[in-house]
Amino acid sequence: MKVDKLWGGRFEELPPKEIVDFLSGRDARGTSPADERLIPYDLWGNRAHLLMLIRQGILSKQDGKKILKGLRELELLCRKGKFRLDPAKEDVHSNIESFLIDRVGIEAGGKIHTGRSRNDQVALDMRLYLRDQVLEYVEGLTALIELLLRQAQAHRSTVMPGYTHHQYAIPTTFGHLLLSFAEAFDRDIRRFVHWFDLFNENPLGAAAGYGTSFPLDRELTSKLLAFDGPTENVTDPITQRWEPEAELAHAVTVMMNHLSTMAQNLILLSTPEFNMVRLHDRHCSGSSIMPQKRNPCSLEVIKAKASFAHGILLSLISVGKALFMGYNRDTQWTKYWIMDLVEETRPAVSVMAEVIRLLEVNRTQMAERTGKGFLGATSLMEWMAVVGRLPLRKAKMAVEKAVKYSEKEGAEEVTYTSLKKAIKDMGIRLPLKEKEVKEIQRPDRILSRNILIGGPSGKGVRENLFSLRERTRGSRKWLTLERREIEKAKERIVRMEQKLAM
Amino acid sequence: MKVDKLWGGRFEELPPKEIVDFLSGRDARGTSPADERLIPYDLWGNRAHLLMLIRQGILSKQDGKKILKGLRELELLCRKGKFRLDPAKEDVHSNIESFLIDRVGIEAGGKIHTGRSRNDQVALDMRLYLRDQVLEYVEGLTALIELLLRQAQAHRSTVMPGYTHHQYAIPTTFGHLLLSFAEAFDRDIRRFVHWFDLFNENPLGAAAGYGTSFPLDRELTSKLLAFDGPTENVTDPITQRWEPEAELAHAVTVMMNHLSTMAQNLILLSTPEFNMVRLHDRHCSGSSIMPQKRNPCSLEVIKAKASFAHGILLSLISVGKALFMGYNRDTQWTKYWIMDLVEETRPAVSVMAEVIRLLEVNRTQMAERTGKGFLGATSLMEWMAVVGRLPLRKAKMAVEKAVKYSEKEGAEEVTYTSLKKAIKDMGIRLPLKEKEVKEIQRPDRILSRNILIGGPSGKGVRENLFSLRERTRGSRKWLTLERREIEKAKERIVRMEQKLAM
Amino acid sequence: MKVDKLWGGRFEELPPKEIVDFLSGRDARGTSPADERLIPYDLWGNRAHLLMLIRQGILSKQDGKKILKGLRELELLCRKGKFRLDPAKEDVHSNIESFLIDRVGIEAGGKIHTGRSRNDQVALDMRLYLRDQVLEYVEGLTALIELLLRQAQAHRSTVMPGYTHHQYAIPTTFGHLLLSFAEAFDRDIRRFVHWFDLFNENPLGAAAGYGTSFPLDRELTSKLLAFDGPTENVTDPITQRWEPEAELAHAVTVMMNHLSTMAQNLILLSTPEFNMVRLHDRHCSGSSIMPQKRNPCSLEVIKAKASFAHGILLSLISVGKALFMGYNRDTQWTKYWIMDLVEETRPAVSVMAEVIRLLEVNRTQMAERTGKGFLGATSLMEWMAVVGRLPLRKAKMAVEKAVKYSEKEGAEEVTYTSLKKAIKDMGIRLPLKEKEVKEIQRPDRILSRNILIGGPSGKGVRENLFSLRERTRGSRKWLTLERREIEKAKERIVRMEQKLAM
Amino acid sequence: MKVDKLWGGRFEELPPKEIVDFLSGRDARGTSPADERLIPYDLWGNRAHLLMLIRQGILSKQDGKKILKGLRELELLCRKGKFRLDPAKEDVHSNIESFLIDRVGIEAGGKIHTGRSRNDQVALDMRLYLRDQVLEYVEGLTALIELLLRQAQAHRSTVMPGYTHHQYAIPTTFGHLLLSFAEAFDRDIRRFVHWFDLFNENPLGAAAGYGTSFPLDRELTSKLLAFDGPTENVTDPITQRWEPEAELAHAVTVMMNHLSTMAQNLILLSTPEFNMVRLHDRHCSGSSIMPQKRNPCSLEVIKAKASFAHGILLSLISVGKALFMGYNRDTQWTKYWIMDLVEETRPAVSVMAEVIRLLEVNRTQMAERTGKGFLGATSLMEWMAVVGRLPLRKAKMAVEKAVKYSEKEGAEEVTYTSLKKAIKDMGIRLPLKEKEVKEIQRPDRILSRNILIGGPSGKGVRENLFSLRERTRGSRKWLTLERREIEKAKERIVRMEQKLAM
Repeated sequence: MKVDKLWGGRFEELPPKEIVDFLSGRDARGTSPADERLIPYDLWGNRAHLLMLIRQGILSKQDGKKILKGLRELELLCRKGKFRLDPAKEDVHSNIESFLIDRVGIEAGGKIHTGRSRNDQVALDMRLYLRDQVLEYVEGLTALIELLLRQAQAHRSTVMPGYTHHQYAIPTTFGHLLLSFAEAFDRDIRRFVHWFDLFNENPLGAAAGYGTSFPLDRELTSKLLAFDGPTENVTDPITQRWEPEAELAHAVTVMMNHLSTMAQNLILLSTPEFNMVRLHDRHCSGSSIMPQKRNPCSLEVIKAKASFAHGILLSLISVGKALFMGYNRDTQWTKYWIMDLVEETRPAVSVMAEVIRLLEVNRTQMAERTGKGFLGATSLMEWMAVVGRLPLRKAKMAVEKAVKYSEKEGAEEVTYTSLKKAIKDMGIRLPLKEKEVKEIQRPDRILSRNILIGGPSGKGVRENLFSLRERTRGSRKWLTLERREIEKAKERIVRMEQKLAM
Repeated sequence: MKVDKLWGGRFEELPPKEIVDFLSGRDARGTSPADERLIPYDLWGNRAHLLMLIRQGILSKQDGKKILKGLRELELLCRKGKFRLDPAKEDVHSNIESFLIDRVGIEAGGKIHTGRSRNDQVALDMRLYLRDQVLEYVEGLTALIELLLRQAQAHRSTVMPGYTHHQYAIPTTFGHLLLSFAEAFDRDIRRFVHWFDLFNENPLGAAAGYGTSFPLDRELTSKLLAFDGPTENVTDPITQRWEPEAELAHAVTVMMNHLSTMAQNLILLSTPEFNMVRLHDRHCSGSSIMPQKRNPCSLEVIKAKASFAHGILLSLISVGKALFMGYNRDTQWTKYWIMDLVEETRPAVSVMAEVIRLLEVNRTQMAERTGKGFLGATSLMEWMAVVGRLPLRKAKMAVEKAVKYSEKEGAEEVTYTSLKKAIKDMGIRLPLKEKEVKEIQRPDRILSRNILIGGPSGKGVRENLFSLRERTRGSRKWLTLERREIEKAKERIVRMEQKLAM
Repeated sequence: MKVDKLWGGRFEELPPKEIVDFLSGRDARGTSPADERLIPYDLWGNRAHLLMLIRQGILSKQDGKKILKGLRELELLCRKGKFRLDPAKEDVHSNIESFLIDRVGIEAGGKIHTGRSRNDQVALDMRLYLRDQVLEYVEGLTALIELLLRQAQAHRSTVMPGYTHHQYAIPTTFGHLLLSFAEAFDRDIRRFVHWFDLFNENPLGAAAGYGTSFPLDRELTSKLLAFDGPTENVTDPITQRWEPEAELAHAVTVMMNHLSTMAQNLILLSTPEFNMVRLHDRHCSGSSIMPQKRNPCSLEVIKAKASFAHGILLSLISVGKALFMGYNRDTQWTKYWIMDLVEETRPAVSVMAEVIRLLEVNRTQMAERTGKGFLGATSLMEWMAVVGRLPLRKAKMAVEKAVKYSEKEGAEEVTYTSLKKAIKDMGIRLPLKEKEVKEIQRPDRILSRNILIGGPSGKGVRENLFSLRERTRGSRKWLTLERREIEKAKERIVRMEQKLAM
Repeated sequence: MKVDKLWGGRFEELPPKEIVDFLSGRDARGTSPADERLIPYDLWGNRAHLLMLIRQGILSKQDGKKILKGLRELELLCRKGKFRLDPAKEDVHSNIESFLIDRVGIEAGGKIHTGRSRNDQVALDMRLYLRDQVLEYVEGLTALIELLLRQAQAHRSTVMPGYTHHQYAIPTTFGHLLLSFAEAFDRDIRRFVHWFDLFNENPLGAAAGYGTSFPLDRELTSKLLAFDGPTENVTDPITQRWEPEAELAHAVTVMMNHLSTMAQNLILLSTPEFNMVRLHDRHCSGSSIMPQKRNPCSLEVIKAKASFAHGILLSLISVGKALFMGYNRDTQWTKYWIMDLVEETRPAVSVMAEVIRLLEVNRTQMAERTGKGFLGATSLMEWMAVVGRLPLRKAKMAVEKAVKYSEKEGAEEVTYTSLKKAIKDMGIRLPLKEKEVKEIQRPDRILSRNILIGGPSGKGVRENLFSLRERTRGSRKWLTLERREIEKAKERIVRMEQKLAM
């Protein structure tokens, strides 16, 4: 008898590998060296720098060709997974330069670092890495929103209690609740896009942070690396090397807060007490000891990762205080922090999308609970204000009393008798009919009259859906455009290299 | 004999009141009730809501006029500073509503809260408050950048050592250093402007977070409050009430980090050891015991406030994790945190501007130090690479050796003899002239050849100055436009009120 | 008609003033100048320093008497609330010294600052202030634990579901749950007590951080200020001025996390869905719009303040990084942060005690829910392991299957038929009786067999109660001792002053 | 030609491997799976649990022996490094249980989890892991303090400027400065020791957080695991699973702040401008481009890691807010955070010890600078107060003026003529002699008169050294005792196992 999992007998389906990975975190898996992730970016930077050096006459074509050959060999090795970073050679930059010198000799290879420093090289690699991550987040969020819109459409009339302070407030719909999260994620997308506005600039050429005497063409490398242009000051990107990282961490942190709030909503709605949604088996775990368990583990892990984001944002902010001009090694650590953050949080987006996709909604329970707990009291008050031409403040006092009386009767909505007693207490004259009092408090009637822009039903939901669809299409378009820019830059390099090779 | 200050005898000029206030913090001054700051915004919101209710026929003109009279009376009291918030009435919203009911009676006054909740009311007030703060920060930063540009222009040729790791790197100019900060502040402006893109939307009409049955016109109130439009979902701005605050806090935190780094640079450059700048007496304090003291207190306080920003950002982020749908009282505290942050940090911008305006720069000391500490070694290496067609890597090894030998000679730049010895060691053939070796390492020569985009002198600085001036003009323009929008909205209200009063 | 509150009609009792203050935060109340809180401590420090200066012959008795007279006058003014800090004189230290010079002339008054700096003076004031706060927290926590013990005693047999992951786990008792919080608060007390071990040392005499040439007697002032002794290095307490504050903030933060978790438990247990506890009206608020509302506002505010603690701890930690030796003005701000934290969080302890004191527990609902949701499944598994000599792992698989089958039958506990089917599936032979299967899953039976140290019922709870009572008595004793020490020191000063005055 | 490093030609000695590792961080090295670190602790826990189950008759000796055999086999595999965690089996607990079932069959192996849950198992593993880390930190700090004391002894008379606000204050000694850090580290030790007082308690037996019906002997397992005793409540350690981690993180964070401040002091003192200390080549790095570079990289990395500590503390605090009773998966992530923190920061202690051991102190420069910058002004003022019977306040004003006049003369100490002018200005009569004025300001004379407890020279330093030596001996003793306890517990297990095997 073979036992892999210590639980699972009560499950119809066990979590797939990506969920197991998501849930078990780093228990049984380590992390790879940070600079491994930078190899493709460092290579790209090397190629662009090389072509520029040749174009500017700083490097001879002959030397350039040799280096290019070395770079290609390296790229091939990488693709085969045969290039390993040697810790004795410190970082990716030294490893690659050492490789080149080793392959093509110091006479050519020793020239690749001309007009460059590791300071601008790593700043470049990180911006390229971060830029790709930004695009990934935007992609993930767009997909998540699309799913939310689909579910919101399906549940646009699924009545449920709206809560404030964890207590019953006013009837709403499950669809509208989902849209409220979609709005938050849409803002998150705009935060990621804003990262481009701030940091899609080329730091290459800053060298150690104060330039160099070689006549580099920073415009050219910017084009070859798909940047909007070179940074307009060479010291700034080096002193503030923590900032693109902190900006991304901020966007991620707010996004994780949104995800954690969504998670918390689903965790509570799926308790046996609320019983309004049921998570799919795939996103639950059992216990090593309790046979009945179905724990909302995916969602809890999302919350854990929100706390991780808080800390990492803070580390990045902390390291950026009161620096002295130019590079300080303090900021090297920003690399590990942001990479950890990215790797911990990126899957959270797609996991949440999956949770939503497979979520079972208990409409009956939702509807039943909405009919109780005086969720119609506000509507009743508003109706009294209108038909009785009462000041709202007065109507409210009356209904407050009526709630108190109804509660004593053991009722869960405002009763005709208690309301009558209440308005009598207050000396209000208002003709009431028992049927009307009941009718006014009916959830579906309440929702059908709640027709505001942004409101929880009917027109409000339709408009919100429409607008979010538009915006999501916009996000997809932006993604496509940015990716095309990047592709074009890479093609430009290939063309220049081919020309050189001829 | 009267003694106010326990120090100051050695100062030519004592700090003006605003600096004393800045430095002594909350030692002898308390803070005013948070909601006092919201009175004008709450009044504005009340006026817009009222006009809309009337226009929609929810409120009769008659009742409307009465309330309007009450509001005007209140406004007058406020202007005279005679309206005080009563803690027994909780917050600004209750205080104002109570006032109205008190003055115009419950029959009219009791109707102002129709179709509204404190949940959307405070969300509205806070967005209006935050929006004004954003404009103030942009204004302050723009002025700070303008000053930096003026000083950078003046010091575009003031040679000084460029540092990395607090050690000598490569010659730079003081003007370029200032521009590197101007770039950072320009990004800060873009962060504040981005706040508008995310949050200049009207939450009014969300009521408790789930709308209302009254047929409110949210487009109209948006116009009257100078918003881009209503929020497209009514639950989102209530659940995520911490978010506009956290976004502002993020922008402020990054800005404070930039200011703290600038402060730290000036603190170090003004130590007796560096002795490169001298702060004006106005920004220094003495000691209660040490007669010789001139402490860079303004700058230290800026650093303290950066740490405050870190914490407040964190509190805002912390409160926004794992909330349940709708309003939770947890988020009420965001109000105090962001207000404290605003009041602590806004003056930091103008104080820094003043520090820069009055800064004395010791050009002689800067120039003298730049000639030492092997600041020209990199240039020498680059020159060798070019004239000797040496791989940079090899040239560097040679100069490294030469530095070691020169140091043993007690020299502070690479000497002819040591370089000769070094290249001999390495078997490099390169004709050297003593004069040339010296010449190559001269700071002014180095700078004159450092002509990159973004570089520390000449063309680089001129272009950077030009571009920053352009962008700053753009910021001013944006400010003017946004303020005009706000003015127009207020005028629209006045016109509608006048029409109503007729 | 007068309307103070915008809600309350459904309440039997409105929140008392201290709760209104707690809930409305700083909406309509400002904060007083920070140094006002330090006046008594600064006076105390002045008196001790003065007596020491005289004893050491640094100050003549004559001058000493004059200053003493001035100090007494000042103390009298303070008691009458007639001493106001003048912002133009910066801080409490300057204000008091100025007052003395003003009253007794510079010839005598100008000598009080002999051998002292504001650096050690404020370090002293803050330690005295913080020490008093520590005692207050210990007192508050002790009272809270006492209340928890009382309630735990009353609810030692109140059966309720134990949860993990927000899902049903194993039956527990409400009393045991309360004890689990009491344990956490007891650790908090130990953290506060530990503050004494680290920081109850006298910084006076450090002067600017490097001592003085006056022959001060630091042992004497330590005795007069109830310290364990002088700090053994004069630079350390000045450079690390943030540290006693950060230590207190840490203890407060962990305590607030404990309180927030307790708050969250009560918030969830009091939702209409859980319906297991009901908060007293005093700790609830209504809505400005929804008549039925009873919101658990006190508890939400406690959660908000936990987030505040996170931020303040962080600011204190942030300011303490990478300082340069001696005093830096950066740390002045620690004063405001820690004072704000103290004032925001100290009432949270007593509010929670009040919440617990008035809490209504719905035993019926708790008991009813415990009988459902397969809470007895683990017990059933354990029983099978014992009577069937089955490996637990196997028993668990069987019960897992049984749960799945029972669920399909619509049952909320493991049914006899489903269990039979499950063990048959697995080829387990075990004689089952229907009655037994039911019996084994009964909450009271489960609890009666759960007799571990620390367990949820019977002996476990009794022992835990006993031990916590012991520890709480110990805390009270410690409090009394420390307060007596402080009183004795103050009496010693009075005696010395009387002797001097003779 | 082979190029490993891109720099180093100017260095006498290159950084050893441990420093290269420290500096290059995770660039070219990944991290291992988290639970690998827990294998020895989980095995220990399994052995203790097993022996207890047998002793209590819950498990037969026969089954027990089989499992024991399996555990031994596993231990052997581990020692040979042949046991690898399988991610498909989630965590260390499941992996080990699966291994046992695999080797000894489910009939015996399936019983090891009796009366246990992964919830208490991981809480146990973590406490054992954290406890060992605490001991390591105490050991590292003790060694660091010992080194500081040795250096302080050597530099007890090395005169240097004492600074406040980065400006000259009062003469001090380098030895005293080192002692001020030793004091801070001694407090850190006390913090780590305090962790034992709070958390050296056994959570095993808590099972899922609510106990079990098996009659476990928690006292016995406590003895076998070297705990002070079982936790007295079983829910508390599960709900608050983040707390022992957060407590350690707090101690580490404060320690890292101390280290970062020490690092910052050394970074500034080793700038070319201060030039007061020189770091050993081993702790410096060069640049990839600038040949003259000697960067204080070890120290900068320490600062970076302080920022990391800030963030991790925060994540741990953030995850511990507003939890619901019992285990929540959110807290699983605390494992990775605290492990990362431990692995990043533990080496920082020994690296700093090495930096101190090899530090070169430039006594000449220190002495020379101490004679300048009016460092004697305070002493002069104190002398005037004494000999002229002047109020200090008046004496200070006089010297303030004198400083101003002296500065105008271009002097760097108070001159006789300027002081005469100043006292004349103020109408003070005091006979001055030129020689005396000079003499009074001499650093050595100032220090020789600064004889306070805790003061910067002579008796003060001797006493501080003596006291710190005592305390450090105490720390070593504590370490030895605690380690012996742990060894004894392990021996007890071996004895019981041998008995069982017989």
